Amino acid sequence: MSHSFMDQGSEGYNEVRPTFYIGQHDSTRSETLNESQYGRILNAGFGFVTTPITNEDFHERVVNLLRELSLDAKNSAQAGSIPDPVVPPLTIEDTTLFPSTYTSGLVAYASPWIDLCSPNHAVSSISRQVLNLEVSYANFCGIRSIIVPGPRQDAAKTGNGQGITQYARAIQEAFSIGTRVNLIIHIPMYREPGLEDKVALLSIDEDKSQTTLEGEDIDLFSAWDSWHVIRSVCEYDSRLFVALKIPRVLPEKELQTRWFSEPLQYLTFGPQTFQSNRAGRPCLSRYHQEMICIYMRLKNAPYFLLCDVGPELQAEPDNTQAAAAEPTTDFPSLAEAATQQSAGTTHTLQPLNVYASYFRHLERQQEPLSDLEQTTLTNFQDWLQSPLQPLSDNLESMTYEVFEGDPVKYFQYEMAIAAALRDWAAQGKPTSSPGGEVVIAVAGSGRGPLVTRALRASESTGVPVKVWAVEKNPNAYVYLLRQNQQAWGGRVTVVKTDMRAWKGPILSTSTSSDSPVYGNVDILVSELLGSFGDNELSPECLDGIQHVLAPGHGISIPASYTAHVSPIATPRIYADIQQRATTGEENAFNTPWVVRLFALDFVAQRVPDRPRFQQAWEFAHPLPRATLEAVEARRAGGVAGGGGGSMAGAVGANDHNARHCHLTFVCRSRGAIHGLAGYFESVLYESTAASTGEGEDGKVELSILPENIDRKSKDMISWFPIFFPLKEPLYFPPDTELEVSMWRQTDDAKVWYEWMVEAFMWVGPSQRVKVGGSGLCSSRKVACLL
Amino acid sequence: MSHSFMDQGSEGYNEVRPTFYIGQHDSTRSETLNESQYGRILNAGFGFVTTPITNEDFHERVVNLLRELSLDAKNSAQAGSIPDPVVPPLTIEDTTLFPSTYTSGLVAYASPWIDLCSPNHAVSSISRQVLNLEVSYANFCGIRSIIVPGPRQDAAKTGNGQGITQYARAIQEAFSIGTRVNLIIHIPMYREPGLEDKVALLSIDEDKSQTTLEGEDIDLFSAWDSWHVIRSVCEYDSRLFVALKIPRVLPEKELQTRWFSEPLQYLTFGPQTFQSNRAGRPCLSRYHQEMICIYMRLKNAPYFLLCDVGPELQAEPDNTQAAAAEPTTDFPSLAEAATQQSAGTTHTLQPLNVYASYFRHLERQQEPLSDLEQTTLTNFQDWLQSPLQPLSDNLESMTYEVFEGDPVKYFQYEMAIAAALRDWAAQGKPTSSPGGEVVIAVAGSGRGPLVTRALRASESTGVPVKVWAVEKNPNAYVYLLRQNQQAWGGRVTVVKTDMRAWKGPILSTSTSSDSPVYGNVDILVSELLGSFGDNELSPECLDGIQHVLAPGHGISIPASYTAHVSPIATPRIYADIQQRATTGEENAFNTPWVVRLFALDFVAQRVPDRPRFQQAWEFAHPLPRATLEAVEARRAGGVAGGGGGSMAGAVGANDHNARHCHLTFVCRSRGAIHGLAGYFESVLYESTAASTGEGEDGKVELSILPENIDRKSKDMISWFPIFFPLKEPLYFPPDTELEVSMWRQTDDAKVWYEWMVEAFMWVGPSQRVKVGGSGLCSSRKVACLL
Repeated sequence: MSHSFMDQGSEGYNEVRPTFYIGQHDSTRSETLNESQYGRILNAGFGFVTTPITNEDFHERVVNLLRELSLDAKNSAQAGSIPDPVVPPLTIEDTTLFPSTYTSGLVAYASPWIDLCSPNHAVSSISRQVLNLEVSYANFCGIRSIIVPGPRQDAAKTGNGQGITQYARAIQEAFSIGTRVNLIIHIPMYREPGLEDKVALLSIDEDKSQTTLEGEDIDLFSAWDSWHVIRSVCEYDSRLFVALKIPRVLPEKELQTRWFSEPLQYLTFGPQTFQSNRAGRPCLSRYHQEMICIYMRLKNAPYFLLCDVGPELQAEPDNTQAAAAEPTTDFPSLAEAATQQSAGTTHTLQPLNVYASYFRHLERQQEPLSDLEQTTLTNFQDWLQSPLQPLSDNLESMTYEVFEGDPVKYFQYEMAIAAALRDWAAQGKPTSSPGGEVVIAVAGSGRGPLVTRALRASESTGVPVKVWAVEKNPNAYVYLLRQNQQAWGGRVTVVKTDMRAWKGPILSTSTSSDSPVYGNVDILVSELLGSFGDNELSPECLDGIQHVLAPGHGISIPASYTAHVSPIATPRIYADIQQRATTGEENAFNTPWVVRLFALDFVAQRVPDRPRFQQAWEFAHPLPRATLEAVEARRAGGVAGGGGGSMAGAVGANDHNARHCHLTFVCRSRGAIHGLAGYFESVLYESTAASTGEGEDGKVELSILPENIDRKSKDMISWFPIFFPLKEPLYFPPDTELEVSMWRQTDDAKVWYEWMVEAFMWVGPSQRVKVGGSGLCSSRKVACLL
Repeated sequence: MSHSFMDQGSEGYNEVRPTFYIGQHDSTRSETLNESQYGRILNAGFGFVTTPITNEDFHERVVNLLRELSLDAKNSAQAGSIPDPVVPPLTIEDTTLFPSTYTSGLVAYASPWIDLCSPNHAVSSISRQVLNLEVSYANFCGIRSIIVPGPRQDAAKTGNGQGITQYARAIQEAFSIGTRVNLIIHIPMYREPGLEDKVALLSIDEDKSQTTLEGEDIDLFSAWDSWHVIRSVCEYDSRLFVALKIPRVLPEKELQTRWFSEPLQYLTFGPQTFQSNRAGRPCLSRYHQEMICIYMRLKNAPYFLLCDVGPELQAEPDNTQAAAAEPTTDFPSLAEAATQQSAGTTHTLQPLNVYASYFRHLERQQEPLSDLEQTTLTNFQDWLQSPLQPLSDNLESMTYEVFEGDPVKYFQYEMAIAAALRDWAAQGKPTSSPGGEVVIAVAGSGRGPLVTRALRASESTGVPVKVWAVEKNPNAYVYLLRQNQQAWGGRVTVVKTDMRAWKGPILSTSTSSDSPVYGNVDILVSELLGSFGDNELSPECLDGIQHVLAPGHGISIPASYTAHVSPIATPRIYADIQQRATTGEENAFNTPWVVRLFALDFVAQRVPDRPRFQQAWEFAHPLPRATLEAVEARRAGGVAGGGGGSMAGAVGANDHNARHCHLTFVCRSRGAIHGLAGYFESVLYESTAASTGEGEDGKVELSILPENIDRKSKDMISWFPIFFPLKEPLYFPPDTELEVSMWRQTDDAKVWYEWMVEAFMWVGPSQRVKVGGSGLCSSRKVACLL
């Protein structure tokens, strides 16, 4: 979505802040603004303005249609056989909206007097026709965004889904009629009894006035629920958005984050949303300001639409209207334009609207974007990436460079190696080198960043090392050789091989046969972790090289890693994946995507024994010798080998790397999840002596868990989370427990994940019933190859 | 599924009854029967027999494997790092099952001592391997059906889905390993506390003996729920079936019909299921017998598997075993075979098993199949047919002949015409014929059955008529002309035209210009109804011919018709549609299928204000004149015409035939629905005078509603129900209300349906929460063309 006319650029600040686009809506406006009026609103500090599509005359005609029908029905013996009236086409009398130079600066506001939810068939039928006529006409005029008033409060209150379902079906049809427009549903954050907009209803039955709902309990999530039905029926159409009415009293965070995850196009504010400051000017509460700050960090940040806050245009002298209605000039004369321009800048003829200027003030209060946010992070928000297959692909230099650009990650590795070297020296452990140096091998060296860190750790601790760099990528190998010449002073031995085929450091070459004698490695350093820890096959790779590790005292950095999951609502990503699935990416829903999850809502509560983030499983290295031997035996086959009872009839040579977990998450409010967010943590090294430089518990760790990253590896950006999508959103009622089953599956040739969610609702202190579940999802078709 | 060896043919009865296939299972059997033992079981009255796949030696080896692991774990410092043992491949010691001549007569029974649901990772892993090994080996040996013991009771009792989910995932994998076998899950109708089969568990932890569950409340639907998870995870695999354990005390009908709708392969009976009759011989309760009668009406009726009811084979002399183990002869000698044969028939050496002979007795007690069931109805069970498009297709003579073969339908039509003629005469209404005859037009005459009935009605009532037969099918037109010559004595005027283009009966041809003068029709008779009433466009066709009807007093037969729906569970049909959807029929889930629904469960209760079958909408003919004029005006276009606000921007010429309904159904027990069953009723004619010959209320009606068909049009077979499928089964908890939204949509060119179901659960006397819903389903892509 873009409004090119809104490109207001920077306003003289060096720092980049989120840009505020501020629009104006007047609910009493019944005619499209003429060019002069439009200019005055821009000059009052607004970037765009709404327009009705049809006028009062049209409204009256439609109401008369309904009135006639009612008379017919009374006179007709055969009840129910009168067909619903057909609303005749628009005429010149019905609208003041026409294609013009500034149409692109207008946002249409569909007639609020229709009632798509009405149980009266004639009313809902006429309402649908009015919406279709308006959408079709606005689409013709070049309007790109149409705000449609949301379902009426009383429709939602009837307790059944009838009204909302009708409404949703009507919106779906409007998309097929307005083939280019976005439809934006105007809906409150939550329904406040008695605060429903008072608009003339499309109803001739005057006694059926709206019932007062004050004093009723507020159902916080009912407005969201209506929205969820609408967008579900519209199948997450990419042209469907929310215009969110911000209330005077903000709801709890849970509802704020729910809306944060939805496709917000506008935040709308009425005068009642504002407080007054000491000078009597409008302002928003601290909570509103905080929420705006959060919402404005979205890549596609919402625009602001200020409703019924002025400026008044009625008092304007009529000559400008006449001039604008004059069809001889499409553009204002240069003189006119100049006058308007100066009027806007000098603030003499047209003072800035106080509400708009308050939002400009808020804009200046926004925290500037950090360099990282500007260059990278904002762009990566919710952008789906296929996971790497480093085992089967050879990476390019640029990719390495991006990875190496994370100082935090390599600092942690250096700390881990240093701690290991200190412990090694302090404990007087034997080394695998005849010269007494600790033998370090960097498995999968890439362009060598960990080699550099290993050398530095040796220097800082004074513990001598022999470093081997093992790399399968023939291009990176060349780079490593040059690094060794230029940066490492020839201190490193570079080996070009798949780590699983490496026989270990060559100690000597026996003179008799020229066959080398291989030694062991003391510390095996690797950076094979993916967003979910084991998803780039670190366990399998390290198994494959473990035979070079010194038995008994050799260690692996990382020493262990864990995978963690949390169920999330992420409708925008779901819409993206669905789009891909329907346009040829048949495995879109089977793929665990790497993605900087941003517009999401963690639906799980933080409760002590059922936390929001739960560990799925763990891998630790090195494996016990017995395990490795059993694995070797299976791979060799025979009676002692694999039995063929494993996955897909495999011998089970990799079965020790299969995992399974079953986790329970608690949800207080109703909602719908779209998949599972996945994260990892890793203990690079855990010091036996509580020396300095590591975490408080002697551990050097990496973490991308939202709750731990700041404590364990703040500002680390190497990994985005992973997302396991569900094929269908899973709706759940309040007081639900979501049970997640997850598997790391393997046959002898590949590794994949499976995941499944079931929802159980508490309906009493001791009764829990199943209310739904996802199917079993699997990435078997896009499995990682060994 | 077929067991060719079981083709036991008729046993001397002229009438055809459902055939009983009776098998034998011995839970203590640990070896495959040899050929002689197998023959003895056949001779005892059984048609097939089960075999274990592996033996006690194998069981012992697996348990030892687990025991060693347990010791290893105790000795290992690093808990959890011991890999699960890999079960070695089968050897000659592990099994007595080999491919042989009678393998196809064997049903394999998988080892019951495994526990796929175990929370102990090693136990569940080994269990999966055992299952995979057994399935793989049985598949190799040529076995076609493997019964797998269902999830253990304690797994289901833990209250969460973990165990069942694991179990289901293991079954899914077994399908990929046993590529040709059917897997049949052995599961009770409901779980009876304390009645779990007592089998040696795969567990070395002896204190963890099974807890007694007696005295607990019975959760009637929990076994079904487990099954539902299993088949959902297996995505309704067509090779997955149920072996249903029949309890001694049958549950309420609701659960019996639930299982009736599932893919039942076996009904299994143990000695405890039986009572004793006065002679001390086993028999089943009256309720069991009734249930069996109902289940045996299924096209794919279940087989019977009698468990642990003898005959005993242990006492058998060893020489036959030795002979059978002798690998020199694959087949019994002719002499041996003759001996066995005569043994079976003379009952001297081998008496019939009392249980088996009781089932033979039951077989003879079955109600014979009616002619109609034999020839047609049974074959049509649950067989999906695409609805006819009679408007765009010209039918063949055979198709007409099938339709004409329903005497009930045409009898009702004749009654309706006769009643109308009687009323006409009694009331002295004017006629459209100058000669005073009542003018009858049969619109869409086909081969003329209604013309015949109209003439008969005239004869029986003595009211003179003039009959016009209007038919668009040029081939049927020829047939009608011949009928007029040969059967109707030239009394009928046959017109070849689309009824919508017919100008009416020609009264005279004016001499001046040769342009004919058209008259009116008094009674318009048509048979355009589909399974859902309006689904073959009867409303649109009758609108199109209504202009010929005498204004004011002309009538239509049918006078009105209504559509009715009910949500249903029909897993077999769902599996069929899914199969089609995945093999190229992309609209399989968008199609309202015509189908003789049989293996179904009506999930909705019969409650007074929310009945099981609810009316969706009604059509009545003729339309009021004002409506018809409005439609004409719209079709003509212009300002007074359509407005473009209708569906897809149409002018709305057919909007008066759009319909919408919102219905609420009540479900007491949990379940899952797969779609909506649709039916119709029609009032052909409602007599103003309560004359004889019609229904008690003066109405002559047609109905295919299960609750009304016997009262209104018993034995009418012209219409099967219609089925509106859901894309995904919709699960619902107990005390749920299902809200059905349904639309008959139309633009100016076509007609289609949309349907959607939402589930709301009562969680207290006044609180109802939404728990899930289907997406919006639509037949727009396979719409009926006008």
